[in-house]
Amino acid sequence: MSKTFEKLSGYLEKAMAIQASMVLFEWDNETLAPKEAAPFTSKVIGSLSAQYMEIMISEEVKELVDACRNEQGLTEAEQAIVREAAEEIEKLQCIPPREYREFAELTSKATRIWAEAKKEKNFKKFAPVLKDIVGYQKKFASYRAKDGEKLYNVMLDSYEKGFDMETLDRFFDELKENIVPMLHDAAERSKKVDDSFLTADYPEQAQEEAARFLAEYVGLDFGRGVLAVSAHPFTTNLHNHDVRITTHYGESIDSSIFSVIHETGHALYELGIRDDLTQTLVGQGASMGMHECQSRFFENIIGRNKAFWEPIFDTVADMFGTPLKSVSLDAFIAAVNKTVPGLIRTEADELSYALHVLVRYEIEKMMIEEDVEIDELPAIWNKKYEEYLGVSPKNDAEGILQDIHWSQGSFGYFPSYALGSAFGAQIYHTMKQEMDVEELLREGKLEAIRKYLREKIHQYGKLKDSRQILKDVTGEDFTPKYYIEYLREKYR
Amino acid sequence: MSKTFEKLSGYLEKAMAIQASMVLFEWDNETLAPKEAAPFTSKVIGSLSAQYMEIMISEEVKELVDACRNEQGLTEAEQAIVREAAEEIEKLQCIPPREYREFAELTSKATRIWAEAKKEKNFKKFAPVLKDIVGYQKKFASYRAKDGEKLYNVMLDSYEKGFDMETLDRFFDELKENIVPMLHDAAERSKKVDDSFLTADYPEQAQEEAARFLAEYVGLDFGRGVLAVSAHPFTTNLHNHDVRITTHYGESIDSSIFSVIHETGHALYELGIRDDLTQTLVGQGASMGMHECQSRFFENIIGRNKAFWEPIFDTVADMFGTPLKSVSLDAFIAAVNKTVPGLIRTEADELSYALHVLVRYEIEKMMIEEDVEIDELPAIWNKKYEEYLGVSPKNDAEGILQDIHWSQGSFGYFPSYALGSAFGAQIYHTMKQEMDVEELLREGKLEAIRKYLREKIHQYGKLKDSRQILKDVTGEDFTPKYYIEYLREKYR
Repeated sequence: MSKTFEKLSGYLEKAMAIQASMVLFEWDNETLAPKEAAPFTSKVIGSLSAQYMEIMISEEVKELVDACRNEQGLTEAEQAIVREAAEEIEKLQCIPPREYREFAELTSKATRIWAEAKKEKNFKKFAPVLKDIVGYQKKFASYRAKDGEKLYNVMLDSYEKGFDMETLDRFFDELKENIVPMLHDAAERSKKVDDSFLTADYPEQAQEEAARFLAEYVGLDFGRGVLAVSAHPFTTNLHNHDVRITTHYGESIDSSIFSVIHETGHALYELGIRDDLTQTLVGQGASMGMHECQSRFFENIIGRNKAFWEPIFDTVADMFGTPLKSVSLDAFIAAVNKTVPGLIRTEADELSYALHVLVRYEIEKMMIEEDVEIDELPAIWNKKYEEYLGVSPKNDAEGILQDIHWSQGSFGYFPSYALGSAFGAQIYHTMKQEMDVEELLREGKLEAIRKYLREKIHQYGKLKDSRQILKDVTGEDFTPKYYIEYLREKYR
Repeated sequence: MSKTFEKLSGYLEKAMAIQASMVLFEWDNETLAPKEAAPFTSKVIGSLSAQYMEIMISEEVKELVDACRNEQGLTEAEQAIVREAAEEIEKLQCIPPREYREFAELTSKATRIWAEAKKEKNFKKFAPVLKDIVGYQKKFASYRAKDGEKLYNVMLDSYEKGFDMETLDRFFDELKENIVPMLHDAAERSKKVDDSFLTADYPEQAQEEAARFLAEYVGLDFGRGVLAVSAHPFTTNLHNHDVRITTHYGESIDSSIFSVIHETGHALYELGIRDDLTQTLVGQGASMGMHECQSRFFENIIGRNKAFWEPIFDTVADMFGTPLKSVSLDAFIAAVNKTVPGLIRTEADELSYALHVLVRYEIEKMMIEEDVEIDELPAIWNKKYEEYLGVSPKNDAEGILQDIHWSQGSFGYFPSYALGSAFGAQIYHTMKQEMDVEELLREGKLEAIRKYLREKIHQYGKLKDSRQILKDVTGEDFTPKYYIEYLREKYR
């Protein structure tokens, strides 16, 4: 190993240990920590985050990163680590520390205000702080914008490298054009499908047993993974030997079933990363979109496929007991594939999901690029829902206040959710040319599918960006074509 | 606030955030983390521990601590923080970093070897590494010894300030003199007591329900506390708004019942610390011994008292169901107060417990002060068990290999377990003069007892050491008299 890189690694190891601590505190906070610990945990995370920044933008690290960039003979992984470190430093140091702190305090306050406003169903309460957040986000983006670069493009690029408004406008236009007309018919057909057995009174223990079974069946290795419970399902990765997913047990069992399959998709990605990248800056999934690609691929393309359920439906139904036990596989598959355009993104069916994201994308563009009046947003939101999904929020809680993202300052993040589905369909198209996916599912041979994804995607971590992965796997640049095709085939 | 102290606080806050991270990783590792994460977690903890040390022994912190010592007008809490910081710095910097790292690696290896040796019931496997550990510990103690000070006294003082071999020899002599003769009769009487209903087949869910009920009844505030499961029960405190206890559900229900009460005793101590000490160097219990005082007070003096169970026995018995449901309170109390001299410290009854500690104290003195041959220890151990407890280990696993402490380099720690019981009896003696404890228990008024302990002990954290607390609460210096009295009264 190069002496310079070794020295840099020493500093990065310290930074990664602190970052792992923040991740663990956040996981703990969402799963187990006592409620009253929260403000003290915030303080600890604040201190850790400052210490992380201090290491990363120290003169020593900056000099070592520069030196490593000119170093010959670094391995591919080492080069990628140097590249990620350089990007991280640029991101961190372009914001003056005072503004960084102010913004951290602002979002901490904002998430609290957002939660209250949502509870009171009152956007007006959230509007002033949202205005401030938009202000900071635009300022921060302007620090990073190369000359003339649009601010929203800076934001988009930071979640999904190589994606800008031009690409996304085309993407969402195609989705709108194709999905909106399909939606009405699909929803009409779905009205005849009975799914009442999903909301019967199943004991929580049965739900837990099924969740664990499904996670393991899809491929979560419990020697390196954990399944816990939280208010909203999520995945946390400390590194490729410690990946944790959560689920929640609500009224309808399909929520937990497909959350578990979705989060296991995320987990498989992280668990599949190569061991030489463990606990380094490139030891995570390539991007938000590629992550959603894996999770939504397993949730929808695999998990809502009849072939997936053929070998296991009886086992799972036995765990839940009646009424599921007396339902046919076909009836179950019909029920979990119903199209019911609704108001809430996280509860959306596969077909209408992208339209929820579209609404957010269009509104974010208006906030960042068009200086829309924040106060007008609820009306705009409601109109778009009416137009694309045919439903109207009765209040802000089931409308514009439903997602936490903006209160955390995340702008440009939402599109990744829809991109992920499209990535998944594009990869699925290629995958089917190499293997009979449905036949493998029918035979319970998920390992073949996991192996394919591990070899082509997971192992690389952040060595490649999502766009490069798509090119390498499918031989094509990103295209929404296969996603549209997939939806047409399934929903027409 | 003084400018100098404020500056120091800034550094200490960073150190405390890193320390909190280590505590959380350790908690997580014992409760939830996937098995294969362990070596990676060790690496993270290693890095955090080095960063903690780096902050604490930095020139800036040392200069600020020195400056603060001469500062006028610091509050009592501020003065205590400065004192603790100075002690911590002294402890950390007297060991050369290279030796510190070597020793960390050694103990990490040693705990693994100890676990294997215990599994194989073979002390010979552990002996060489134990020899090395003793060597390091003696060297480290010699760095800290004031002129002529005995090394084992240095070690004892670091766990229990103001306690040395002279005090402990007298203490343990009195215990030996009094307990050994009582033990035989008490054990004979206990043989007639039926406790078979404690090992009946109770569902784990019932045990969990009872554990939660008891923790809450004794006083664990679940807004600031957590109850989880681990291999061995323990308490973790992040700060006085986040204290976590564990239990385990085994064959005999008294193990979980009294573990929960014991650990809740620890938790109450931490939860009772004043808010101006939160997340500072003095925001923990005064000492190991004072901690065991609280936990063993609740476990034994309160928890094995008939009056404690009077208002709740029926409720708890209902949770467990039959056979406990059909057992009388008197029969239950007799069963959980049986004296059964055995081989394992952690399963010992109240009367014989101190003798287990005595054996370890005598052997530690031999290791540190008398250069005993390590290979001879199993024989010495077995002989002492025969002499004091009348039982002989069949193998090293139930003999000298039972405890993890030595593999971690903890010498001088064991005595605190016995001291804690004695502190508890001394405090109980005073407490009874101010309130009718048994009457309060009978009426379910535990808050009065908690309030007493909070006001007299808990709130101070590390503002006072254990010896000072004893003096302030009881008006007397430490004396084993009341412990002996308590045991005589109960077991004669």
